[in-house]
Amino acid sequence: MDPVRLSDLATRLAAELIGDGEVVISGAAGLEHAGPGDITFLARPSLVGKLGQCEAAAVIVGPDVDVDRPALRVQDPYRVFARLLADLATPLERLFPPGIHPTAVVDPSADVADGVSLGPGVVVGQGCRVGAGSRLGPHVVLECDVTVGADCILFAHVVVRDRCRLGDRVILHPACVLGADGFGYLPGPTGLEKIPQVGIVILEDDVELGAGTCVDRATTGTTVIGQGTKLDNMVQVGHNVKIGRHGVFSAQTGISGSCVIGDGVSMGGQVGVKDHLKVGDKAQVGAKSGLHKDVPDGAAVFGYPAMEAGDAMRIVTAMSRLPQLVRKVRDLERSLERLTSATEDGSKPEEGSS
Amino acid sequence: MDPVRLSDLATRLAAELIGDGEVVISGAAGLEHAGPGDITFLARPSLVGKLGQCEAAAVIVGPDVDVDRPALRVQDPYRVFARLLADLATPLERLFPPGIHPTAVVDPSADVADGVSLGPGVVVGQGCRVGAGSRLGPHVVLECDVTVGADCILFAHVVVRDRCRLGDRVILHPACVLGADGFGYLPGPTGLEKIPQVGIVILEDDVELGAGTCVDRATTGTTVIGQGTKLDNMVQVGHNVKIGRHGVFSAQTGISGSCVIGDGVSMGGQVGVKDHLKVGDKAQVGAKSGLHKDVPDGAAVFGYPAMEAGDAMRIVTAMSRLPQLVRKVRDLERSLERLTSATEDGSKPEEGSS
Amino acid sequence: MDPVRLSDLATRLAAELIGDGEVVISGAAGLEHAGPGDITFLARPSLVGKLGQCEAAAVIVGPDVDVDRPALRVQDPYRVFARLLADLATPLERLFPPGIHPTAVVDPSADVADGVSLGPGVVVGQGCRVGAGSRLGPHVVLECDVTVGADCILFAHVVVRDRCRLGDRVILHPACVLGADGFGYLPGPTGLEKIPQVGIVILEDDVELGAGTCVDRATTGTTVIGQGTKLDNMVQVGHNVKIGRHGVFSAQTGISGSCVIGDGVSMGGQVGVKDHLKVGDKAQVGAKSGLHKDVPDGAAVFGYPAMEAGDAMRIVTAMSRLPQLVRKVRDLERSLERLTSATEDGSKPEEGSS
Repeated sequence: MDPVRLSDLATRLAAELIGDGEVVISGAAGLEHAGPGDITFLARPSLVGKLGQCEAAAVIVGPDVDVDRPALRVQDPYRVFARLLADLATPLERLFPPGIHPTAVVDPSADVADGVSLGPGVVVGQGCRVGAGSRLGPHVVLECDVTVGADCILFAHVVVRDRCRLGDRVILHPACVLGADGFGYLPGPTGLEKIPQVGIVILEDDVELGAGTCVDRATTGTTVIGQGTKLDNMVQVGHNVKIGRHGVFSAQTGISGSCVIGDGVSMGGQVGVKDHLKVGDKAQVGAKSGLHKDVPDGAAVFGYPAMEAGDAMRIVTAMSRLPQLVRKVRDLERSLERLTSATEDGSKPEEGSS
Repeated sequence: MDPVRLSDLATRLAAELIGDGEVVISGAAGLEHAGPGDITFLARPSLVGKLGQCEAAAVIVGPDVDVDRPALRVQDPYRVFARLLADLATPLERLFPPGIHPTAVVDPSADVADGVSLGPGVVVGQGCRVGAGSRLGPHVVLECDVTVGADCILFAHVVVRDRCRLGDRVILHPACVLGADGFGYLPGPTGLEKIPQVGIVILEDDVELGAGTCVDRATTGTTVIGQGTKLDNMVQVGHNVKIGRHGVFSAQTGISGSCVIGDGVSMGGQVGVKDHLKVGDKAQVGAKSGLHKDVPDGAAVFGYPAMEAGDAMRIVTAMSRLPQLVRKVRDLERSLERLTSATEDGSKPEEGSS
Repeated sequence: MDPVRLSDLATRLAAELIGDGEVVISGAAGLEHAGPGDITFLARPSLVGKLGQCEAAAVIVGPDVDVDRPALRVQDPYRVFARLLADLATPLERLFPPGIHPTAVVDPSADVADGVSLGPGVVVGQGCRVGAGSRLGPHVVLECDVTVGADCILFAHVVVRDRCRLGDRVILHPACVLGADGFGYLPGPTGLEKIPQVGIVILEDDVELGAGTCVDRATTGTTVIGQGTKLDNMVQVGHNVKIGRHGVFSAQTGISGSCVIGDGVSMGGQVGVKDHLKVGDKAQVGAKSGLHKDVPDGAAVFGYPAMEAGDAMRIVTAMSRLPQLVRKVRDLERSLERLTSATEDGSKPEEGSS
């Protein structure tokens, strides 16, 4: 980040300047990493106490927060800070040197737009199309008849199998695999017979997939990830799955074949979803949950097997006291036995006396 | 798929023609994707209701199913449909153009059979052998002394480390890794000391491994995946494991080191198996289970920790009612207390009267 | 392994020779794989019974173990055996032929030390530095400004993104991904807005990462794996995480963003750790656990949600008897009801009589 006076930064970010505007800022970093030349931010007012140990020269704060050093006051500190971070990233031109590297292998039938960056060893197979401004890192493989939209970023070692289609501004992190065969077999007389997987994968605009994430092609038709949806690393999406728009799926989660996931769904990490389930819009699924039945719109679920989050928490609490419950029941049995004996002993004479 | 009259398709598939044989079929697709020129199928008679919204020109049905449009009646609709799908797949010659790509790096000591397809950037190391008809996609790496049988398909970015051996007709999806070191260390005076992993991996004939799946080499001897066994994406197989024949293992499952898994075993997704366990022939393991002890032949198990499926379901049911159980016990305690007080109160006068 | 007389092996390994020293040893293998020319070992005295079915010519044993064939007696049989295994591994020079392969793409600005091995298709980007004696397998990609220390081994298809730094003697198994973007977004008016991830990954000396393992770069600052720590295959480490020294993390485990893990921590496979947690030094986490709160130094935890291992085991035991507990409570309810009725019946006449 080029050094800049805090007052100039205030102007640029449309922020209220608090304190000394002559302070020079040369970097931006989170609370735990910020050094003397950095600007940092307070995501929540409650973090103000952590500022004491931080050497940052200035801090971005929200309304009604007072701090002990020069500051920029804005509505949404994290968002403004994120905008600053963009200046600190390695420029795309350095990550993806412009042009087509001489070791890239581009089939003559492929249609590669002007201004595309193809790194060393990139393979663009027969009938592929790559849109303007897209960047493909080293050894990315587009098998054949693949369509990549405009301004996409495919990092090193991404593989896109035949006929799959990517929208615009799609980001695929290293070693993503799109369009591998779905997992389908029929039992046959000499073993399992493979069901050909002839469908494709469609990633809509602004989809981002993490490193090593796999999205399988459909048996027929399409596996679809909806616009703006983000998948973390090593997420598995089975064949025929439809995921809606603007969803967030954390690392190592797996969605089995033919599931239909709504818009705005969020799943924690290591979630597993049984095949053919429907998960409603804006549903929230806690980390490591195992879904075995449909989830309605807006529901929050959790657990293995997953259930409504409130129920799940009550069960977890009850479970944590299960050994005590066992003891209580044992005590009850004994007390009852004693009482029964006592009552019987006590009642015998009465019976006799009646 | 080249357009064909339904009556001709009936002859080719040895199916009973029902209704208009002149209908022209130009594609095949599942119930949810089939359009006007397609033929679809009913996997189960119960799906007949879903046919209403489907525009398919014709449908493949089983015995005793009546439908509202031209149909082919066969014993096993899904199997016949799967046979049709093969016609719709991208031809292997397009996925793997014949011959050795000029950018492939083949060591002079390697023995590559005639008719093998090696894609761009393929590396075939010292002492490797590749059997007739095998196809290696872009950037596949055979490290050294690797044996690949006949008619294998290795998709882009597969890595096979030194000395590992593949049978015939093995299919490896993109980014599979065979023969990485097993995870073994001994505590030493200055940290963990690596136990050299000098064994290999053997994949028998007709094994298929999903994208990103890893099978580790043995410490000594062999890690083996038996004939016809299929592993889905991102499955982890530890060192020294033996997996039997014709098994099916869903995505993200992990088998720890030295396990012995029988023939015909099926595991759902995200299962974890502790090291050194034995899982018997035809055992079935539910998704997301955690196995911590041996599983006998033919058993169905489920849960974390896994137990016999019937028991596991009873426990899951009981668990879902655990908060009520806690309340019942509390009620019992109160009732018992009241009763005890009453009995004691009641008995005192009696005692006095006796 | 070159054939060697057992007596010479005894001298070389500083072991006590037992029995015939003229026996010729030409290989080393575990108990289950050892053949007639091999030497094997007994990790524990209790395994002596398994030696009966083993054809090994000789065996390495610990103190106080007597066996039926020539043997070497040492303090720590597994460690001595491991030293022998190193002789059986494929030589590094065969795995990584010396020099820079003509198809490697090394940016002129990169600083590659003498004696480095760069395999076919390796990409060393702008501003990278690779230390003496390091070996990079086929298609390894160092994006730009990456630092690799001395004597590192990066197997085929490893990707290291910009600016990440590796210490000395680091081992990365195939398809590892270092420095992919952390998973961070802010909700915006038209969808999720990406928070730029501008930090890096640091792997300290002697770190080893399994095949397909991913370590994400920090948002700002560093994601760190401490000296000597070993991660198995397909482990996910989120942004900003700090893992201490000499830890062991089994396959498919996931550590969410901003966690701080101490020294000497061990985690089983498929563990999930919630973001921002602290796990203390020498903590042990059982396989498949889900951590949702901090773990103190030296604690052993287990379960989903994880708790102290003793508690967890008690709960697992209680859970396995839950259906019986339900029945007991039902029986108690009935008994109590009967008793209550009896008492009431019994007390009525008394009431009348009072």
